[in-house]
Amino acid sequence: MNIVLVGAGNLATNIGKAISRSGHQIVQIYSRTEASARTLADILGCTYTTSIDEVFEDADLYMIALKDSVLKDMAELLVKGRENRLFVHTAGSIDMDIIPALRRGVFYPMQTFSKQREVDFREIPIFIEAAHADDRDLLKSLASDISGKVYELNSENRKYLHLAAVFCCNFANHCFRLGEKLLDEHGGMPFEVMLPLIDETARKLHELTPQEAQTGPAVRWDENVIGKQMQLLSDTPDLQHIYELLSKSIHHDKL
Amino acid sequence: MNIVLVGAGNLATNIGKAISRSGHQIVQIYSRTEASARTLADILGCTYTTSIDEVFEDADLYMIALKDSVLKDMAELLVKGRENRLFVHTAGSIDMDIIPALRRGVFYPMQTFSKQREVDFREIPIFIEAAHADDRDLLKSLASDISGKVYELNSENRKYLHLAAVFCCNFANHCFRLGEKLLDEHGGMPFEVMLPLIDETARKLHELTPQEAQTGPAVRWDENVIGKQMQLLSDTPDLQHIYELLSKSIHHDKL
Repeated sequence: MNIVLVGAGNLATNIGKAISRSGHQIVQIYSRTEASARTLADILGCTYTTSIDEVFEDADLYMIALKDSVLKDMAELLVKGRENRLFVHTAGSIDMDIIPALRRGVFYPMQTFSKQREVDFREIPIFIEAAHADDRDLLKSLASDISGKVYELNSENRKYLHLAAVFCCNFANHCFRLGEKLLDEHGGMPFEVMLPLIDETARKLHELTPQEAQTGPAVRWDENVIGKQMQLLSDTPDLQHIYELLSKSIHHDKL
Repeated sequence: MNIVLVGAGNLATNIGKAISRSGHQIVQIYSRTEASARTLADILGCTYTTSIDEVFEDADLYMIALKDSVLKDMAELLVKGRENRLFVHTAGSIDMDIIPALRRGVFYPMQTFSKQREVDFREIPIFIEAAHADDRDLLKSLASDISGKVYELNSENRKYLHLAAVFCCNFANHCFRLGEKLLDEHGGMPFEVMLPLIDETARKLHELTPQEAQTGPAVRWDENVIGKQMQLLSDTPDLQHIYELLSKSIHHDKL
Protein backbone atom coordinates (compact mmCIF):
# COMPACT_ATOMS: atom_id res chain seq x y z
CA MET A 1 0.00 0.00 0.00
CA ASN A 2 1.01 3.61 -0.59
CA ILE A 3 0.43 5.47 2.62
CA VAL A 4 0.43 9.15 3.58
CA LEU A 5 1.37 9.53 7.22
CA VAL A 6 -0.11 12.56 8.97
CA GLY A 7 1.95 13.52 12.03
CA ALA A 8 5.62 13.25 12.95
CA GLY A 9 5.59 12.73 16.72
CA ASN A 10 6.43 9.65 18.82
CA LEU A 11 3.60 7.50 17.58
CA ALA A 12 3.93 8.54 13.92
CA THR A 13 7.67 7.85 14.03
CA ASN A 14 7.21 4.40 15.52
CA ILE A 15 4.37 3.43 13.17
CA GLY A 16 6.16 4.87 10.16
CA LYS A 17 9.27 2.78 10.81
CA ALA A 18 7.19 -0.35 11.33
CA ILE A 19 5.22 0.18 8.14
CA SER A 20 8.37 0.80 6.10
CA ARG A 21 9.97 -2.36 7.47
CA SER A 22 6.86 -4.38 6.56
CA GLY A 23 7.31 -3.71 2.83
CA HIS A 24 4.54 -1.12 2.51
CA GLN A 25 5.40 2.37 1.39
CA ILE A 26 5.12 5.62 3.29
CA VAL A 27 5.01 7.99 0.31
CA GLN A 28 4.66 11.29 2.18
CA ILE A 29 4.73 12.81 5.66
CA TYR A 30 2.50 15.72 6.54
CA SER A 31 3.22 17.75 9.65
CA ARG A 32 2.74 21.40 10.55
CA THR A 33 6.22 21.39 12.10
CA GLU A 34 8.72 21.38 9.27
CA ALA A 35 11.68 20.15 11.33
CA SER A 36 9.76 17.08 12.56
CA ALA A 37 8.37 16.38 9.10
CA ARG A 38 11.83 16.53 7.53
CA THR A 39 13.44 14.37 10.24
CA LEU A 40 10.89 11.62 9.82
CA ALA A 41 10.90 11.87 6.02
CA ASP A 42 14.70 11.44 6.09
CA ILE A 43 14.39 8.35 8.27
CA LEU A 44 11.73 6.81 6.05
CA GLY A 45 13.19 7.97 2.74
CA CYS A 46 10.06 9.74 1.50
CA THR A 47 8.82 13.24 0.75
CA TYR A 48 7.16 15.59 3.20
CA THR A 49 4.99 18.68 3.22
CA THR A 50 3.73 21.21 5.72
CA SER A 51 0.84 22.30 3.50
CA ILE A 52 -2.48 20.45 3.41
CA ASP A 53 -2.93 21.47 -0.24
CA GLU A 54 0.21 19.56 -1.17
CA VAL A 55 -0.86 16.29 0.45
CA PHE A 56 -1.08 13.64 -2.29
CA GLU A 57 -4.58 12.90 -3.50
CA ASP A 58 -4.10 9.34 -4.69
CA ALA A 59 -2.71 7.41 -1.72
CA ASP A 60 -4.26 4.06 -0.75
CA LEU A 61 -4.43 5.10 2.88
CA TYR A 62 -4.17 8.27 4.95
CA MET A 63 -3.05 7.46 8.48
CA ILE A 64 -3.59 10.27 10.98
CA ALA A 65 -1.26 9.84 13.97
CA LEU A 66 -1.83 13.09 15.83
CA LYS A 67 -2.72 14.25 19.33
CA ASP A 68 -6.37 13.53 20.11
CA SER A 69 -7.11 17.23 20.52
CA VAL A 70 -6.30 18.18 16.90
CA LEU A 71 -7.60 15.00 15.27
CA LYS A 72 -11.07 16.21 14.38
CA ASP A 73 -10.03 19.45 12.68
CA MET A 74 -7.23 17.78 10.78
CA ALA A 75 -9.45 14.94 9.58
CA GLU A 76 -11.91 17.46 8.12
CA LEU A 77 -9.19 19.35 6.29
CA LEU A 78 -7.66 16.17 4.90
CA VAL A 79 -10.85 14.53 3.70
CA LYS A 80 -11.82 17.60 1.66
CA GLY A 81 -10.97 16.93 -1.98
CA ARG A 82 -10.03 13.30 -1.19
CA GLU A 83 -13.53 12.05 -0.37
CA ASN A 84 -13.16 8.60 -1.91
CA ARG A 85 -9.94 7.68 -0.13
CA LEU A 86 -9.50 5.57 3.03
CA PHE A 87 -8.70 7.46 6.25
CA VAL A 88 -7.78 6.02 9.66
CA HIS A 89 -6.75 7.49 12.97
CA THR A 90 -4.57 5.77 15.55
CA ALA A 91 -6.17 6.93 18.80
CA GLY A 92 -7.48 4.46 21.37
CA SER A 93 -10.08 6.68 22.93
CA ILE A 94 -11.54 8.42 19.87
CA ASP A 95 -14.60 7.29 17.93
CA MET A 96 -14.09 6.19 14.33
CA ASP A 97 -16.90 8.52 13.25
CA ILE A 98 -14.84 11.58 14.04
CA ILE A 99 -13.52 11.12 10.48
CA PRO A 100 -16.01 12.67 8.01
CA ALA A 101 -15.39 10.20 5.18
CA LEU A 102 -17.35 7.18 3.98
CA ARG A 103 -14.19 5.06 3.96
CA ARG A 104 -13.04 5.59 7.54
CA GLY A 105 -11.42 3.37 10.09
CA VAL A 106 -9.17 3.02 13.12
CA PHE A 107 -5.71 1.50 13.41
CA TYR A 108 -4.80 1.55 17.12
CA PRO A 109 -1.49 0.06 18.20
CA MET A 110 -1.72 -0.27 21.98
CA GLN A 111 1.67 0.54 23.43
CA THR A 112 3.53 3.21 25.40
CA PHE A 113 5.81 5.03 22.99
CA SER A 114 8.78 7.13 24.11
CA LYS A 115 11.11 8.89 21.69
CA GLN A 116 14.15 7.40 23.40
CA ARG A 117 13.07 3.78 22.94
CA GLU A 118 12.68 1.57 19.90
CA VAL A 119 9.83 -0.93 20.32
CA ASP A 120 9.30 -4.29 18.66
CA PHE A 121 6.08 -3.81 16.71
CA ARG A 122 5.63 -7.58 16.14
CA GLU A 123 4.63 -7.81 19.82
CA ILE A 124 2.26 -4.85 19.84
CA PRO A 125 -1.46 -5.64 19.60
CA ILE A 126 -3.18 -3.60 16.87
CA PHE A 127 -6.93 -2.98 17.10
CA ILE A 128 -8.74 -2.47 13.81
CA GLU A 129 -12.11 -0.98 12.91
CA ALA A 130 -13.57 0.13 9.57
CA ALA A 131 -16.90 1.38 8.25
CA HIS A 132 -16.73 -1.00 5.27
CA ALA A 133 -15.84 -4.69 5.17
CA ASP A 134 -13.37 -4.30 2.28
CA ASP A 135 -11.48 -1.60 4.11
CA ARG A 136 -11.48 -3.68 7.27
CA ASP A 137 -9.82 -6.52 5.36
CA LEU A 138 -7.28 -4.09 3.92
CA LEU A 139 -6.43 -2.73 7.37
CA LYS A 140 -6.22 -6.21 8.88
CA SER A 141 -3.84 -7.25 6.17
CA LEU A 142 -1.64 -4.19 6.72
CA ALA A 143 -1.73 -4.70 10.50
CA SER A 144 -0.80 -8.38 10.10
CA ASP A 145 2.25 -7.41 8.08
CA ILE A 146 3.39 -5.31 11.06
CA SER A 147 2.27 -7.25 14.13
CA GLY A 148 1.50 -10.82 15.13
CA LYS A 149 -1.42 -9.62 17.26
CA VAL A 150 -4.32 -8.11 15.31
CA TYR A 151 -7.84 -7.74 16.68
CA GLU A 152 -11.10 -6.27 15.45
CA LEU A 153 -12.76 -3.96 17.97
CA ASN A 154 -15.53 -1.39 17.68
CA SER A 155 -15.27 2.18 18.96
CA GLU A 156 -17.37 1.62 22.08
CA ASN A 157 -15.32 -1.32 23.33
CA ARG A 158 -12.06 0.34 22.30
CA LYS A 159 -12.83 3.21 24.68
CA TYR A 160 -12.82 0.76 27.58
CA LEU A 161 -9.73 -0.96 26.24
CA HIS A 162 -7.93 2.38 26.20
CA LEU A 163 -9.15 3.15 29.71
CA ALA A 164 -7.85 -0.24 30.87
CA ALA A 165 -4.53 0.63 29.22
CA VAL A 166 -4.38 3.87 31.23
CA PHE A 167 -4.66 1.81 34.41
CA CYS A 168 -2.22 -0.91 33.28
CA CYS A 169 0.41 1.48 31.94
CA ASN A 170 0.11 5.11 33.05
CA PHE A 171 -1.23 4.48 36.54
CA ALA A 172 1.06 1.51 37.21
CA ASN A 173 3.99 3.64 36.02
CA HIS A 174 2.91 6.40 38.38
CA CYS A 175 3.00 3.90 41.26
CA PHE A 176 6.62 3.24 40.25
CA ARG A 177 7.22 6.99 40.26
CA LEU A 178 5.75 7.39 43.75
CA GLY A 179 7.95 4.54 44.97
CA GLU A 180 10.95 6.30 43.45
CA LYS A 181 10.03 9.52 45.27
CA LEU A 182 9.88 7.72 48.61
CA LEU A 183 13.33 6.27 48.01
CA ASP A 184 14.74 9.63 46.93
CA GLU A 185 13.49 11.33 50.04
CA HIS A 186 14.25 8.62 52.58
CA GLY A 187 17.16 6.37 52.96
CA GLY A 188 19.35 6.70 49.98
CA MET A 189 18.69 3.54 48.01
CA PRO A 190 18.82 4.09 44.23
CA PHE A 191 15.61 3.31 42.34
CA GLU A 192 17.35 0.48 40.49
CA VAL A 193 17.01 -1.72 43.61
CA MET A 194 13.30 -1.82 42.70
CA LEU A 195 13.79 -3.20 39.19
CA PRO A 196 13.85 -6.93 40.05
CA LEU A 197 10.61 -6.47 42.00
CA ILE A 198 8.99 -4.49 39.18
CA ASP A 199 10.13 -7.01 36.57
CA GLU A 200 8.72 -9.91 38.58
CA THR A 201 5.45 -8.03 39.20
CA ALA A 202 4.98 -7.81 35.41
CA ARG A 203 6.33 -11.29 34.66
CA LYS A 204 3.98 -13.00 37.13
CA LEU A 205 0.98 -12.00 35.01
CA HIS A 206 2.05 -14.41 32.28
CA GLU A 207 1.12 -17.21 34.72
CA LEU A 208 -1.25 -15.74 37.30
CA THR A 209 -4.19 -13.34 37.15
CA PRO A 210 -3.54 -9.96 38.83
CA GLN A 211 -5.80 -11.05 41.66
CA GLU A 212 -3.91 -14.30 42.20
CA ALA A 213 -0.62 -12.44 41.95
CA GLN A 214 -1.41 -9.90 44.65
CA THR A 215 0.73 -9.89 47.82
CA GLY A 216 1.53 -7.40 50.59
CA PRO A 217 -0.14 -5.77 53.57
CA ALA A 218 -3.36 -4.61 51.86
CA VAL A 219 -4.44 -8.01 50.53
CA ARG A 220 -3.62 -9.61 53.90
CA TRP A 221 -5.30 -6.58 55.53
CA ASP A 222 -2.45 -6.37 58.01
CA GLU A 223 -3.75 -3.39 59.99
CA ASN A 224 -0.55 -3.02 61.96
CA VAL A 225 1.62 -2.51 58.87
CA ILE A 226 -1.02 -0.43 57.09
CA GLY A 227 -1.35 1.85 60.13
CA LYS A 228 2.41 2.33 60.37
CA GLN A 229 2.75 3.03 56.65
CA MET A 230 -0.09 5.57 56.80
CA GLN A 231 1.91 7.20 59.59
CA LEU A 232 5.08 7.34 57.47
CA LEU A 233 3.07 9.29 54.89
CA SER A 234 1.56 11.80 57.31
CA ASP A 235 3.75 14.62 55.93
CA THR A 236 2.53 13.98 52.38
CA PRO A 237 -1.29 13.92 52.57
CA ASP A 238 -1.73 13.40 48.81
CA LEU A 239 0.40 10.28 48.91
CA GLN A 240 -1.32 9.14 52.08
CA HIS A 241 -4.69 9.50 50.38
CA ILE A 242 -3.54 7.40 47.41
CA TYR A 243 -2.14 4.79 49.81
CA GLU A 244 -5.41 4.57 51.69
CA LEU A 245 -7.61 4.44 48.61
CA LEU A 246 -5.57 1.76 46.83
CA SER A 247 -5.19 -0.34 49.99
CA LYS A 248 -8.95 -0.32 50.54
CA SER A 249 -9.58 -1.10 46.89
CA ILE A 250 -7.24 -4.11 47.10
CA HIS A 251 -8.93 -5.25 50.30
CA HIS A 252 -12.46 -4.93 48.90
CA ASP A 253 -11.43 -6.70 45.73
CA LYS A 254 -10.55 -9.75 47.78
CA LEU A 255 -13.85 -9.89 49.69
CA MET B 1 25.99 -22.29 58.42
CA ASN B 2 23.47 -24.49 60.20
CA ILE B 3 20.16 -22.70 60.08
CA VAL B 4 16.81 -23.25 61.81
CA LEU B 5 14.02 -21.87 59.63
CA VAL B 6 10.96 -20.66 61.51
CA GLY B 7 7.89 -20.65 59.27
CA ALA B 8 6.75 -22.74 56.32
CA GLY B 9 4.76 -20.29 54.19
CA ASN B 10 5.56 -18.73 50.80
CA LEU B 11 8.53 -16.71 51.94
CA ALA B 12 10.01 -19.46 54.13
CA THR B 13 9.67 -21.96 51.28
CA ASN B 14 11.41 -19.68 48.79
CA ILE B 15 14.20 -18.69 51.19
CA GLY B 16 14.65 -22.26 52.39
CA LYS B 17 15.17 -23.51 48.84
CA ALA B 18 17.59 -20.71 48.03
CA ILE B 19 19.64 -21.34 51.19
CA SER B 20 19.80 -25.09 50.53
CA ARG B 21 20.97 -24.48 46.99
CA SER B 22 23.70 -22.11 48.19
CA GLY B 23 25.48 -24.87 50.14
CA HIS B 24 24.30 -23.81 53.59
CA GLN B 25 22.23 -26.19 55.67
CA ILE B 26 18.66 -25.80 56.84
CA VAL B 27 18.79 -28.23 59.77
CA GLN B 28 15.23 -27.85 61.05
CA ILE B 29 11.87 -26.30 60.18
CA TYR B 30 9.60 -25.01 62.91
CA SER B 31 5.96 -24.31 62.13
CA ARG B 32 2.78 -24.54 64.15
CA THR B 33 1.08 -26.16 61.16
CA GLU B 34 2.37 -29.71 60.95
CA ALA B 35 1.37 -30.30 57.32
CA SER B 36 3.27 -27.20 56.12
CA ALA B 37 6.29 -28.04 58.28
CA ARG B 38 6.43 -31.58 56.93
CA THR B 39 6.01 -30.50 53.30
CA LEU B 40 8.86 -28.00 53.51
CA ALA B 41 11.08 -30.37 55.51
CA ASP B 42 10.56 -33.00 52.80
CA ILE B 43 11.56 -30.53 50.09
CA LEU B 44 14.67 -29.43 51.95
CA GLY B 45 15.58 -32.85 53.34
CA CYS B 46 15.68 -31.81 56.99
CA THR B 47 13.81 -32.43 60.24
CA TYR B 48 10.86 -30.42 61.48
CA THR B 49 8.98 -29.74 64.69
CA THR B 50 5.76 -28.08 65.78
CA SER B 51 6.95 -27.61 69.36
CA ILE B 52 9.08 -24.65 70.43
CA ASP B 53 10.72 -26.80 73.11
CA GLU B 54 12.10 -29.10 70.44
CA VAL B 55 13.70 -26.34 68.37
CA PHE B 56 17.46 -27.02 68.30
CA GLU B 57 19.52 -24.91 70.71
CA ASP B 58 22.83 -24.89 68.88
CA ALA B 59 22.09 -23.55 65.37
CA ASP B 60 24.31 -20.82 63.91
CA LEU B 61 21.27 -18.83 62.86
CA TYR B 62 17.53 -18.75 63.54
CA MET B 63 15.70 -17.21 60.62
CA ILE B 64 12.12 -16.19 61.40
CA ALA B 65 10.07 -15.99 58.19
CA LEU B 66 6.57 -15.45 59.59
CA LYS B 67 3.68 -13.04 59.11
CA ASP B 68 4.49 -9.67 60.64
CA SER B 69 1.60 -9.99 63.10
CA VAL B 70 3.02 -13.04 64.92
CA LEU B 71 6.69 -12.09 64.66
CA LYS B 72 7.07 -10.43 68.05
CA ASP B 73 5.51 -13.20 70.12
CA MET B 74 7.38 -15.90 68.26
CA ALA B 75 10.72 -14.11 68.60
CA GLU B 76 10.26 -13.93 72.39
CA LEU B 77 9.46 -17.63 72.67
CA LEU B 78 12.39 -18.62 70.49
CA VAL B 79 15.04 -16.48 72.16
CA LYS B 80 14.23 -17.91 75.59
CA GLY B 81 16.87 -20.51 76.43
CA ARG B 82 18.88 -19.61 73.28
CA GLU B 83 20.01 -16.15 74.39
CA ASN B 84 23.50 -16.31 72.83
CA ARG B 85 22.37 -17.32 69.39
CA LEU B 86 21.86 -15.13 66.32
CA PHE B 87 18.26 -14.37 65.32
CA VAL B 88 17.00 -12.58 62.23
CA HIS B 89 13.60 -11.81 60.81
CA THR B 90 12.80 -11.36 57.13
CA ALA B 91 10.18 -8.58 57.26
CA GLY B 92 10.67 -5.33 55.38
CA SER B 93 8.55 -3.13 57.58
CA ILE B 94 9.49 -4.42 61.06
CA ASP B 95 12.19 -2.96 63.30
CA MET B 96 15.18 -5.17 64.07
CA ASP B 97 14.72 -4.44 67.76
CA ILE B 98 11.51 -6.44 67.90
CA ILE B 99 13.83 -9.41 68.52
CA PRO B 100 14.75 -9.49 72.24
CA ALA B 101 18.25 -10.91 71.76
CA LEU B 102 21.68 -9.25 71.83
CA ARG B 103 22.62 -10.94 68.56
CA ARG B 104 19.73 -9.83 66.37
CA GLY B 105 19.44 -8.83 62.77
CA VAL B 106 17.32 -8.56 59.65
CA PHE B 107 17.55 -10.48 56.38
CA TYR B 108 14.98 -8.94 54.01
CA PRO B 109 14.73 -10.29 50.48
CA MET B 110 12.62 -7.77 48.58
CA GLN B 111 10.40 -9.68 46.20
CA THR B 112 6.77 -10.70 45.64
CA PHE B 113 6.49 -14.40 46.43
CA SER B 114 3.60 -16.56 45.23
CA LYS B 115 3.36 -20.28 45.98
CA GLN B 116 2.76 -21.06 42.32
CA ARG B 117 5.96 -19.42 41.08
CA GLU B 118 9.62 -20.26 41.50
CA VAL B 119 11.80 -17.13 41.64
CA ASP B 120 15.47 -16.69 40.78
CA PHE B 121 17.01 -15.62 44.08
CA ARG B 122 20.27 -14.48 42.41
CA GLU B 123 18.30 -11.47 41.12
CA ILE B 124 16.57 -10.59 44.37
CA PRO B 125 18.08 -7.76 46.40
CA ILE B 126 18.64 -8.73 50.04
CA PHE B 127 18.79 -6.00 52.70
CA ILE B 128 20.89 -6.79 55.77
CA GLU B 129 21.04 -5.29 59.25
CA ALA B 130 22.62 -6.56 62.48
CA ALA B 131 23.21 -5.27 66.00
CA HIS B 132 26.84 -6.45 65.92
CA ALA B 133 29.47 -6.03 63.21
CA ASP B 134 30.50 -9.73 63.31
CA ASP B 135 26.94 -10.83 62.79
CA ARG B 136 26.47 -8.32 60.00
CA ASP B 137 29.47 -9.83 58.20
CA LEU B 138 28.06 -13.32 58.73
CA LEU B 139 24.68 -12.28 57.29
CA LYS B 140 26.28 -10.47 54.36
CA SER B 141 28.29 -13.54 53.54
CA LEU B 142 25.20 -15.77 53.68
CA ALA B 143 23.21 -13.28 51.57
CA SER B 144 26.02 -13.08 49.00
CA ASP B 145 25.93 -16.85 48.61
CA ILE B 146 22.25 -16.56 47.67
CA SER B 147 21.99 -13.28 45.74
CA GLY B 148 24.17 -11.03 43.62
CA LYS B 149 22.52 -7.96 45.16
CA VAL B 150 23.23 -7.44 48.86
CA TYR B 151 22.81 -4.12 50.66
CA GLU B 152 23.15 -2.90 54.23
CA LEU B 153 20.18 -0.88 55.42
CA ASN B 154 19.01 0.23 58.85
CA SER B 155 15.49 -0.29 60.17
CA GLU B 156 14.35 3.29 59.67
CA ASN B 157 15.33 3.42 56.00
CA ARG B 158 14.07 -0.12 55.41
CA LYS B 159 10.57 1.01 56.44
CA TYR B 160 10.54 3.48 53.55
CA LEU B 161 12.05 0.92 51.21
CA HIS B 162 9.23 -1.46 52.07
CA LEU B 163 6.67 1.29 51.59
CA ALA B 164 8.19 2.05 48.18
CA ALA B 165 7.90 -1.66 47.38
CA VAL B 166 4.19 -1.57 48.24
CA PHE B 167 3.75 1.17 45.62
CA CYS B 168 5.98 -0.48 42.99
CA CYS B 169 4.53 -3.96 43.40
CA ASN B 170 1.18 -4.19 45.22
CA PHE B 171 -0.29 -0.91 43.99
CA ALA B 172 1.01 -1.32 40.44
CA ASN B 173 -0.42 -4.85 40.41
CA HIS B 174 -3.74 -3.48 41.59
CA CYS B 175 -3.74 -1.07 38.64
CA PHE B 176 -3.34 -4.16 36.43
CA ARG B 177 -6.25 -5.75 38.29
CA LEU B 178 -8.48 -2.70 37.75
CA GLY B 179 -7.59 -2.74 34.05
CA GLU B 180 -8.55 -6.42 33.95
CA LYS B 181 -11.92 -5.64 35.56
CA LEU B 182 -12.68 -2.98 32.95
CA LEU B 183 -11.90 -5.47 30.18
CA ASP B 184 -14.01 -8.18 31.82
CA GLU B 185 -17.00 -5.92 32.10
CA HIS B 186 -16.78 -4.13 28.76
CA GLY B 187 -15.95 -5.40 25.38
CA GLY B 188 -14.73 -8.90 25.65
CA MET B 189 -10.99 -8.60 25.14
CA PRO B 190 -9.02 -11.10 27.22
CA PHE B 191 -6.58 -9.63 29.75
CA GLU B 192 -3.65 -11.14 27.85
CA VAL B 193 -3.94 -8.35 25.22
CA MET B 194 -2.53 -6.10 27.98
CA LEU B 195 0.63 -8.13 28.55
CA PRO B 196 2.84 -6.52 25.85
CA LEU B 197 1.92 -3.09 27.26
CA ILE B 198 2.59 -4.18 30.84
CA ASP B 199 5.89 -5.80 29.89
CA GLU B 200 7.05 -2.67 28.07
CA THR B 201 5.93 -0.46 30.98
CA ALA B 202 8.28 -2.43 33.26
CA ARG B 203 11.06 -2.80 30.70
CA LYS B 204 11.24 0.94 29.97
CA LEU B 205 12.45 1.59 33.51
CA HIS B 206 15.76 -0.08 32.72
CA GLU B 207 16.48 2.91 30.46
CA LEU B 208 14.23 5.77 31.58
CA THR B 209 13.14 7.11 34.96
CA PRO B 210 9.45 6.59 35.75
CA GLN B 211 8.90 10.30 35.16
CA GLU B 212 10.59 10.21 31.74
CA ALA B 213 8.69 7.04 30.87
CA GLN B 214 5.23 8.46 31.57
CA THR B 215 2.77 8.75 28.67
CA GLY B 216 -1.01 9.02 28.31
CA PRO B 217 -3.78 11.55 28.87
CA ALA B 218 -2.88 12.56 32.45
CA VAL B 219 0.71 13.63 31.76
CA ARG B 220 -0.44 15.50 28.64
CA TRP B 221 -3.38 16.80 30.73
CA ASP B 222 -5.69 16.08 27.82
CA GLU B 223 -8.91 17.30 29.44
CA ASN B 224 -11.09 15.99 26.67
CA VAL B 225 -9.94 12.38 27.09
CA ILE B 226 -9.81 12.66 30.90
CA GLY B 227 -13.36 14.00 30.98
CA LYS B 228 -14.65 11.21 28.76
CA GLN B 229 -12.86 8.54 30.76
CA MET B 230 -14.26 9.95 34.02
CA GLN B 231 -17.67 9.63 32.35
CA LEU B 232 -17.06 5.97 31.45
CA LEU B 233 -16.44 5.32 35.15
CA SER B 234 -19.54 7.10 36.42
CA ASP B 235 -21.19 3.80 37.40
CA THR B 236 -18.22 2.81 39.51
CA PRO B 237 -17.51 5.76 41.82
CA ASP B 238 -14.64 4.01 43.64
CA LEU B 239 -12.83 3.44 40.37
CA GLN B 240 -13.64 6.96 39.23
CA HIS B 241 -12.15 8.35 42.43
CA ILE B 242 -8.93 6.37 41.89
CA TYR B 243 -8.81 7.56 38.27
CA GLU B 244 -9.17 11.18 39.31
CA LEU B 245 -6.66 11.01 42.13
CA LEU B 246 -3.96 9.27 40.09
CA SER B 247 -4.49 11.51 37.06
CA LYS B 248 -4.09 14.62 39.22
CA SER B 249 -1.06 13.15 40.93
CA ILE B 250 0.58 12.46 37.53
CA HIS B 251 -0.28 15.98 36.37
CA HIS B 252 1.09 17.67 39.51
CA ASP B 253 4.23 15.55 39.34
CA LYS B 254 4.98 17.06 35.96
CA LEU B 255 4.54 20.68 37.02
